[in-house]
Amino acid sequence: MKEELRYAIVGSGALGGYYGAKLARAGCDVHFLMRSGLDTVWRDGLTVHSKDGDFRLPRVNAYGSSEEIGPCDVVLIGLKTTSNAALAEIIPPLLGPETAVVTLQNGLGNEEFLALHFGARRVMGGLCFVCLNRTAPGVIEHLEYGRVSIGEFKGPPQDRTMRVVTDFQRAEVEAKAVQSLITERWRKLVWNVPFNGLGIAAGANVAEVLSDERLEANARALMAEVIQAAGKLGYAIRPDFIESQIQSSLTMGGYRSSSQIDYEAGREVEVEAIWGEPLRQARGAGAETPRLELLYALLRRLARVRKQKGNF
Amino acid sequence: MKEELRYAIVGSGALGGYYGAKLARAGCDVHFLMRSGLDTVWRDGLTVHSKDGDFRLPRVNAYGSSEEIGPCDVVLIGLKTTSNAALAEIIPPLLGPETAVVTLQNGLGNEEFLALHFGARRVMGGLCFVCLNRTAPGVIEHLEYGRVSIGEFKGPPQDRTMRVVTDFQRAEVEAKAVQSLITERWRKLVWNVPFNGLGIAAGANVAEVLSDERLEANARALMAEVIQAAGKLGYAIRPDFIESQIQSSLTMGGYRSSSQIDYEAGREVEVEAIWGEPLRQARGAGAETPRLELLYALLRRLARVRKQKGNF
Repeated sequence: MKEELRYAIVGSGALGGYYGAKLARAGCDVHFLMRSGLDTVWRDGLTVHSKDGDFRLPRVNAYGSSEEIGPCDVVLIGLKTTSNAALAEIIPPLLGPETAVVTLQNGLGNEEFLALHFGARRVMGGLCFVCLNRTAPGVIEHLEYGRVSIGEFKGPPQDRTMRVVTDFQRAEVEAKAVQSLITERWRKLVWNVPFNGLGIAAGANVAEVLSDERLEANARALMAEVIQAAGKLGYAIRPDFIESQIQSSLTMGGYRSSSQIDYEAGREVEVEAIWGEPLRQARGAGAETPRLELLYALLRRLARVRKQKGNF
Repeated sequence: MKEELRYAIVGSGALGGYYGAKLARAGCDVHFLMRSGLDTVWRDGLTVHSKDGDFRLPRVNAYGSSEEIGPCDVVLIGLKTTSNAALAEIIPPLLGPETAVVTLQNGLGNEEFLALHFGARRVMGGLCFVCLNRTAPGVIEHLEYGRVSIGEFKGPPQDRTMRVVTDFQRAEVEAKAVQSLITERWRKLVWNVPFNGLGIAAGANVAEVLSDERLEANARALMAEVIQAAGKLGYAIRPDFIESQIQSSLTMGGYRSSSQIDYEAGREVEVEAIWGEPLRQARGAGAETPRLELLYALLRRLARVRKQKGNF
C-alpha cells in the first residue's frame, strides 16, 4: 500500500456519508459512490449536523459509478445489508491486487458474503456504534455515539488494520483494532437481537423495554440464547455480559435502535443480517434458540407488511 | 331445581346476548343483565343477524341490576374476562342455595375465580366455539360456528349439566357435555395461544400464519408448549392433536380470531385469560415455555399501548 490510502465509500447514505466525510475533512483521499443525490452533492457538498459540532465539505469527490472511481486501497461499505446483492457488480472496478474491502454494515454474514465474491484475504469489517440519520441528499445527522471497532475477517489485526484505524483516529473517530472481529459481531448482536427486535415487535424503545418486567426478562433470555449460540460456534462470551449490557442500557433512556427507526419510517429493516443469519448459524451449531425463532418469524412478517404499506 | 330453569345472563354483549337470545327464543325463562343499551333493548328488543337465519325478540326481560333479577337456577356469564373483578359484586343477588354459575368466557382461570368467590360446588363452564360481534346496542351479528361444550368445574357431568345442555340443544345450539372441562379448556388453548397471539403480534390472520413457513413452524411449537404444560398439570393431550389442529385451520381461510378483531378495533384483549394464566400455571408445573413467555410479554405491551390509542 502507498503512503496515503485511497478510500472508496460504497453506499454514501448516513453511515458511509458520515465516516467518509470525517475522513475527507481530516485530509484523507476519499471517493464517494452515490446511488442518489449526486447532483445535490456536486452542487452543495456534504453537510454533517453532529452532536460533536456541525461541519460542511463544500467540495467532495462524488461519483455515480465505481468505474469512474477505479481501484482504491480501501473500500468502505456503508450500504444497507438488504442491498448486498448489488455489491457483486459494484465492487470489482474498485479492486486492485491489494485492495481491502471493509464492511461497516450491521449484523452477521456480510464478511462471509464478501469473502465468497472477492476472497477472504481482502475482507475486513468494522462495527459501528453510532446513531445517524440521512435527513436530505448530502445532509447527515449524527445523533449519538460514533466509535468503531475494526478487525480482520480472518485472524488478528495486520499492518493494514492499524493503518485504517489510524486514519479513523486522525479523523476524530474513536477507533480501535479488535483481535476477533466475529466475536465482536456476536457481542454486538447480544444487544441488537433483543433491543432492535423488541423495538419493532413490541413498539418499545430501550427505556420501555427495561421498565416492563416481562419484556426485560425476555430481553435477558434472548441475550442468553445469543451467547449460547456464539459459544457453540466458538466465540466465547461470558454470561455476565448480559448484566453489563442491561446496566449500560439503563443509561440510554428512550433510545430507539436504527431498526426501530427504519421500521417506523416504513424503510427496509435488516432482518436477515440481525436475526435471520444468527438464527441459521445458531441452528447449524445445535443451539436452542426458541425465542429468537419466534422473534425472527414475527419481524420477517412485520417488516414485509410494513414495507408494503410504507411510512405511516 | 325446578321443572323449568330460570336463567340469568350476566354480560349481555355479543356472547351472552347471542346464547341468551337463542334460549329465550326457544321459550326458556331468561333474564338479561345489561350494563349498556338497556333503553334500546326495552324499546326494540334483541336482534340477531345470523348465518343460520336472522331473528328478533321484540320483548326480552332486561335489567340494569342483578338485584332486580333476583335468584336464578343458572347464571350464564358472558362478560369479558378483563371485567371479572366486577363479578364479585354482580353475582351474589342472583344466587339461591342451588344456583349454578356457568362461565362461557375465554381462556383459563375463570372457573377458579368463581370458585374462590362463590364456592367450587356452584361452578360450571362452557367452551364456546363461535364468532360473534355486537354491532349496536341490542344487535348481534353471528358470523361463524356456534357450538358449546359444557362441563363441571370439578368432576364429570351431573344431572344439572345435562339439563343445561338439553336447554341449549332445545335452543338449536350444538351443545354437549364434557367429562373434563379443564382438559377441554387446555385443548382450546392449543389453538387460541398461537392463532389469537400471532394474529395480534404478527398482524396475521389464520391463512396468513399458515402460508408463512416460519410463522407456521412457530404456531406448531407454541402448540407443543401448551400441550407440554397441560400434560405436566395432569391434562393429557396427545401430540398428534397439533397436526389435526393445523389441518382443520387450513379450512378456515382468512379467519381472524376474536382477539385479533378486538385488538384491531382498539378494544380490550383478554391477555391474561388466554396467555398470562396458562403461562403462570405452566411455570408453576415446571414446563418449559419460552415462546409463550415472549409472546405473552409482547401481547401485554401491545394490548396496553393499543388500548391507550384506541381504534385506528
